[in-house]
Amino acid sequence: MNADLGPVEVVGAGLIGTSIALACRRAGLDVLLNDTSPEHLRTASGLGAGRAKEDGDVPALVVVAVPPDHLGRAIAAALDAAGEGTVVTDVGSVKAAPLATLAGHPALARYVGSHPMAGSERSGPLTASADLFSGRPWAITPHPGSAADAVQTVARLVQVCGAVAVRLSPSEHDLAVARTSHVPHLVSSLVAGTLAGAAPEHLALTGQGVRDVTRVAGGDPTLYSQIIGGNSEAVAGLLREVRDRLDLALEAVADGDRASLESLLAHGVAGTRAIPGKHGGPVQTLAAVHVAVPDHPGELARLFADVGSSGVNIEDVRIDHDPGRPVGLVELDVAEGRAEELLVALESKGWVTHR
Amino acid sequence: MNADLGPVEVVGAGLIGTSIALACRRAGLDVLLNDTSPEHLRTASGLGAGRAKEDGDVPALVVVAVPPDHLGRAIAAALDAAGEGTVVTDVGSVKAAPLATLAGHPALARYVGSHPMAGSERSGPLTASADLFSGRPWAITPHPGSAADAVQTVARLVQVCGAVAVRLSPSEHDLAVARTSHVPHLVSSLVAGTLAGAAPEHLALTGQGVRDVTRVAGGDPTLYSQIIGGNSEAVAGLLREVRDRLDLALEAVADGDRASLESLLAHGVAGTRAIPGKHGGPVQTLAAVHVAVPDHPGELARLFADVGSSGVNIEDVRIDHDPGRPVGLVELDVAEGRAEELLVALESKGWVTHR
Repeated sequence: MNADLGPVEVVGAGLIGTSIALACRRAGLDVLLNDTSPEHLRTASGLGAGRAKEDGDVPALVVVAVPPDHLGRAIAAALDAAGEGTVVTDVGSVKAAPLATLAGHPALARYVGSHPMAGSERSGPLTASADLFSGRPWAITPHPGSAADAVQTVARLVQVCGAVAVRLSPSEHDLAVARTSHVPHLVSSLVAGTLAGAAPEHLALTGQGVRDVTRVAGGDPTLYSQIIGGNSEAVAGLLREVRDRLDLALEAVADGDRASLESLLAHGVAGTRAIPGKHGGPVQTLAAVHVAVPDHPGELARLFADVGSSGVNIEDVRIDHDPGRPVGLVELDVAEGRAEELLVALESKGWVTHR
Repeated sequence: MNADLGPVEVVGAGLIGTSIALACRRAGLDVLLNDTSPEHLRTASGLGAGRAKEDGDVPALVVVAVPPDHLGRAIAAALDAAGEGTVVTDVGSVKAAPLATLAGHPALARYVGSHPMAGSERSGPLTASADLFSGRPWAITPHPGSAADAVQTVARLVQVCGAVAVRLSPSEHDLAVARTSHVPHLVSSLVAGTLAGAAPEHLALTGQGVRDVTRVAGGDPTLYSQIIGGNSEAVAGLLREVRDRLDLALEAVADGDRASLESLLAHGVAGTRAIPGKHGGPVQTLAAVHVAVPDHPGELARLFADVGSSGVNIEDVRIDHDPGRPVGLVELDVAEGRAEELLVALESKGWVTHR
């Protein structure tokens, strides 16, 4: 069933483009690489991601994987060059704005946008992997004029990459990522900004909570200003909602209105419960088991060996980095009913634990 | 040197109080337990945390560990009952407001506030542990009239609990936790609130970023409305700053002002770099190595055994819970210069990895 997918042309041999190329090569497809940087091209083909595109090559599918601000132009160029049998997709984080720049293009029916929910704080072809998309959601965002066979072709690409297709319209997609990614990123960045220049003795009280809240704020500002700026309508709409609720919170705090404050916090709890659980199933109730672990190689291995022989499955794990701690504190999250069993098993092996 | 610390009375045998009691017992101190709930008292003493306080018992140190809204009254009651040699501390999350209610108390010199940076989403004596505070920051917040020997007594308690003392004035403490805990919590809750009631097909695009941002928002709304509401001045001041910067962000997004947006995001990056690193040292540059791990017991153990034999120390670890993923994706964070070594070692053992 992959026979009709290749050759696949990848425009932009960065992390995402090269990872797609590697996944296509793994599936036995011909891959044509296209990048303005000769160095990226050499690196990607050196990794086995395909060969440089030449005149006369006719791709069945063009995957445009360039930075957000160049998407519209690069997709148009690909459509200009496309033969009748060629489908064009892109992997940009925003779908409506690039589509708008393509309005009236005679080959628009051959274009179907898409967006894999994968990536990394790293970039460039050297960080690519054929497994980057394995099991990840991958939005497919046809426009009303997209040809049905073009949508099928993009769905096959998603399958080849081992991802899970989620079908959405371009504008629905942009609303979704504004909510699940762009606004959280921006707000995380605002919280992180309050730490810049704070007194070191105040920051000495930093715990795991604020580290979690501000983690995504470490991403590249240039890239994220393109992503967030490219989805301005959806982001601004939702950000206004957040600002209005922040004003309510501010009023509740300043007025000492505990009931309103508690109700805002309870609304947040409801939101955390709306996040899909592992494997898309219902959210499990987890219990945390904490284990003190000496901070040198081998100790984590010994811990996980003991966890493994306990037979209790670990749903999540984190290492606590509180300053001043002489040993690491590892949090193991397990199904509520199994925590006691794990505690007993680990204590019998000499680990210092607590819930 | 602990001889002059005991007997220690603990008022409120919940998670924090019972954990302190257990740490004191481990150090060989007498512990007197005091709780309005006979069940908590029985549970805590059953765990070996001490014995119920009786008439005639004279503590050297009283540790008040009751919910935020009861702190002022409980500290006053402890000071009322205190003999000349008795010191009173509390472990509340907010320091200025309870202190204000004590103004003019004749024994005020015997009171020194404190606040261990530990806790859990769990509560009650059954979840307590003598190791809860090991290596954690613990703020000691004397007021101008605190007696020097009383401050020393509280510092010894911190030492007995294995925590790291951070000396701050009550108002500095409240500013610090507004910044490192209360405002991040509240803003996390506002972001989480935007997920409540969102369309499930939109939430299908949820990735790790928003899960991190909203994790703390899962905490008990009643407890956090007391904590945040009890620190209203510091929280409101900082929240106004966040609101003003959010307005700037909104304007930048709505106006398509990429330079301002990028500058706000860059300020956030600077904030993430201000967070103290592991063991209080400078922040290390970490590289992430991703490993696909089948989701059943024993596989994590096998992975960590192979990590251990590679000799590369793991700085952080997380398991990715993206819906639809048939296997778990484990992210191992290691020092930048060691990532390649770890990748090679794991691949030689047959693991599917990528950076």
